[in-house]
Amino acid sequence: MREIQAAKNNKIKKLKKLHQRKYRNQSEDYLLEGYHLIEEAAKAHANIKEVFLDKRGMDLWQDWVEHHQFTYYVLSDEAMKSLSEQPTPQGIIALVQKANNYPSDFSGKWLLLDNVQDPGNVGTIVRTADAAGFDGIFLGEGTADKYSPKVLRSMQGSQFHLPIFSGELTEVIAEFQSIGSKIYGTKLDPEAISYKEVETKDNFVLILGNEGQGVAENILQLTNQNLYIPIYGDAESLNVGVAAGILIYALIS
Amino acid sequence: MREIQAAKNNKIKKLKKLHQRKYRNQSEDYLLEGYHLIEEAAKAHANIKEVFLDKRGMDLWQDWVEHHQFTYYVLSDEAMKSLSEQPTPQGIIALVQKANNYPSDFSGKWLLLDNVQDPGNVGTIVRTADAAGFDGIFLGEGTADKYSPKVLRSMQGSQFHLPIFSGELTEVIAEFQSIGSKIYGTKLDPEAISYKEVETKDNFVLILGNEGQGVAENILQLTNQNLYIPIYGDAESLNVGVAAGILIYALIS
Repeated sequence: MREIQAAKNNKIKKLKKLHQRKYRNQSEDYLLEGYHLIEEAAKAHANIKEVFLDKRGMDLWQDWVEHHQFTYYVLSDEAMKSLSEQPTPQGIIALVQKANNYPSDFSGKWLLLDNVQDPGNVGTIVRTADAAGFDGIFLGEGTADKYSPKVLRSMQGSQFHLPIFSGELTEVIAEFQSIGSKIYGTKLDPEAISYKEVETKDNFVLILGNEGQGVAENILQLTNQNLYIPIYGDAESLNVGVAAGILIYALIS
Repeated sequence: MREIQAAKNNKIKKLKKLHQRKYRNQSEDYLLEGYHLIEEAAKAHANIKEVFLDKRGMDLWQDWVEHHQFTYYVLSDEAMKSLSEQPTPQGIIALVQKANNYPSDFSGKWLLLDNVQDPGNVGTIVRTADAAGFDGIFLGEGTADKYSPKVLRSMQGSQFHLPIFSGELTEVIAEFQSIGSKIYGTKLDPEAISYKEVETKDNFVLILGNEGQGVAENILQLTNQNLYIPIYGDAESLNVGVAAGILIYALIS
């Protein structure tokens, strides 16, 4: 256990860089904030390299941290405020090693996200796929980073329940096709097939796309079928997180 | 057409109070920001009392405003920044009269929200109900205000496609029961009935509840059936907006 008083301490300054995607890409680690999420990480046997607690955090979680034999630092309120992304920090932040980055098995039910930009949408969709018992998720180019603080918050720990990978979706789709998985795109177009008419198999992939543009055309051309959700009223479209929920639960039913 | 230069102009100061719920409750009017939403309001024949434009807004929408013969004011950038809720104002804000506040007909498909607190969730749910062709919505106590800027933004104009009322839900439910509508609550409890086992009728009401606590117990006791969405994975729950989407689309199918 060591103490850090100054918000401008060098270690804090280095850690804070992990709030930015470009530094996370260079690093093997990311920051996870809040006891509930860190506990989920520990349960999932993620490699928790260091834990940072302020005084309040020490009162609440010192025993837990010592029981797990984590290396930990005690931060002044000032240093915790500087490191935290929250207006009112809970008092516990962990430095966690990123997970493995390619699946060993492509069977089962998978979700692919193409250019879904809003971190809250990405987190909510991951949480829904977890609830529905999906086997894994691929985040394609342009999709919000799974290690960004906002995505981590809105996933509510679901990243420790099912694996999340990043990859070029056209290449990833080829892997799924090679084992005979059925590939479903989504399209805001009544020429696509209504999702209610689909009979799913055990191995399938559902692809959701950008908030404005939907799934990219070059990806839609690789699918077996493209699904749409009928609009009966006057709304122009559905929120992508809501659309994901409707499709995910319809496909597993 | 009149000009307003100062951000501290009395009219601007009065209008800004409408960002707060307590002043909106005293007023018959609310503020609507952004051309797309104001255009929807005009299409729906809402009473647009005044329009406020900055220079950029004048370039883009002066013709449209004059065509509709709306009373309008030209604001300095400073005054627009002061009145707007957005970091980068679009340049057009309208003062709109609130809509009628009680339905004349309770038949059809209705949604009731009990204590749904997050404005983004309320807006997304309204948009989904619109897409699904619902006939109306009641917002119960504790639910985010339909005239709050964040709810207005996330509804994306759906409030002009279906009527949204506020009311004490226990009283409202009695109205629906009196015409024989079926009342469905929602409950995070496997002792409730899976939503997939429900056969809906033309006249029904779906009730969704608070993000943490769900629907209040006294309301659940008034329902015909309480539905749940099965969780197959390890997520503890679904986002209420996602749950709403799954249930709304399942009930109309």
